[in-house]
Amino acid sequence: MPRLDESLLTHLPPFSRLEKRQIRRILDQASSRRYDAGVAIFQEGHPAERFFMLLDGYVRVVRITATGEQVTALHIPPGQLIGIARAIGRDTYPATAMTASESLALSWPMHLWDNFVAEYDGFATESYKTLGQRLGEVQNKIVEMATQQVEQRVANALLRLVNQTGRKVENGIEIDFPITRQDLSELTATTLHTVSRLLSGWEKQGLVESRRKRIVVRDPHALVVLSQK
Amino acid sequence: MPRLDESLLTHLPPFSRLEKRQIRRILDQASSRRYDAGVAIFQEGHPAERFFMLLDGYVRVVRITATGEQVTALHIPPGQLIGIARAIGRDTYPATAMTASESLALSWPMHLWDNFVAEYDGFATESYKTLGQRLGEVQNKIVEMATQQVEQRVANALLRLVNQTGRKVENGIEIDFPITRQDLSELTATTLHTVSRLLSGWEKQGLVESRRKRIVVRDPHALVVLSQK
Repeated sequence: MPRLDESLLTHLPPFSRLEKRQIRRILDQASSRRYDAGVAIFQEGHPAERFFMLLDGYVRVVRITATGEQVTALHIPPGQLIGIARAIGRDTYPATAMTASESLALSWPMHLWDNFVAEYDGFATESYKTLGQRLGEVQNKIVEMATQQVEQRVANALLRLVNQTGRKVENGIEIDFPITRQDLSELTATTLHTVSRLLSGWEKQGLVESRRKRIVVRDPHALVVLSQK
Repeated sequence: MPRLDESLLTHLPPFSRLEKRQIRRILDQASSRRYDAGVAIFQEGHPAERFFMLLDGYVRVVRITATGEQVTALHIPPGQLIGIARAIGRDTYPATAMTASESLALSWPMHLWDNFVAEYDGFATESYKTLGQRLGEVQNKIVEMATQQVEQRVANALLRLVNQTGRKVENGIEIDFPITRQDLSELTATTLHTVSRLLSGWEKQGLVESRRKRIVVRDPHALVVLSQK
């Protein structure tokens, strides 16, 4: 296996204050692995044996209901730690991490968590900042679900994806994240049927273009208006 | 002002591993304050100048929407730290803490947070455990809102309150927490009208009894059945 290069980590906040020799040691302790899209990196309730740094790809943090439905609580972009059960005093993973695209992650045995926190300047601070952001995000989602109509929620979800991963293309802004109608329905806590109906309507009005796993927002301003109705 | 007694803190997880002289020092640095029901202990977006230990009473963590609606993201029982913005790398409070009943809290200037984490054994670990539990709770709520009908959600909310604060009384289990229909509608992300309609129906069927701010669950088993429909 080729040696992992320090440049993989130096720009990521939990590691950005560290010296090169510290990063080297952290990489020597890591395993790296590629994942296909749609697989679980770790599963809710399983023993939390390793923690992960998502280097490439996107991950959906999902909870599985009693009837087997998946509900997406969070979307994780590359450059974030996941599966950090030890950070919140747990021995098992509190949720399942599903890859939303082909992904690459480093991982370390969970017993190293305490060492990283104790030895590496800024590591704990940055990790807990991430945790706080996630708490804020799920709280925002609750507010949205409690107060917004489905149309607003879907418009907001698209705008959020545009902000997080938008890429300018000829006819608008493309969401640079493989997203299906099923994903959107999970994100907005609505049904596949409703999302399909909304997107078809918006497509006819020239607001969006959607193909398999790809959505281009042609008229972001119109979506903003819809999201604030 | 009477001197605060060590027994206020010794049994609470963030402080339970500390020696008496450490608790003494922590109390000497604290301010104590009583709050009426329905007031804000701190407000979303304000500078996070102090962190708090809720000694008595209950607090709702709320987000205020653009149109001024309050949405309850979490309920906090006594014995927990609140307003710990510094723990998640923030300078402002991420949400508003509203007292749901008359409450009593200690507070410390935020700059002491880092000292507490560095000096007091178990303080950080227990605080982050709490944070993790809150993240889990809001995620559960999203799952519920995404997958359950309103009737199930209200039944689940009542059962959760029974588990958390239930007190055996003659005709059933009383929720030992002043809860209004408005609170229940916020908790379950539905309207006051829907909650009133459901509770009236359940009252007629002998499942619950509700008076002003008091709810007695007479038939928990029937609620469990409803919650799993």
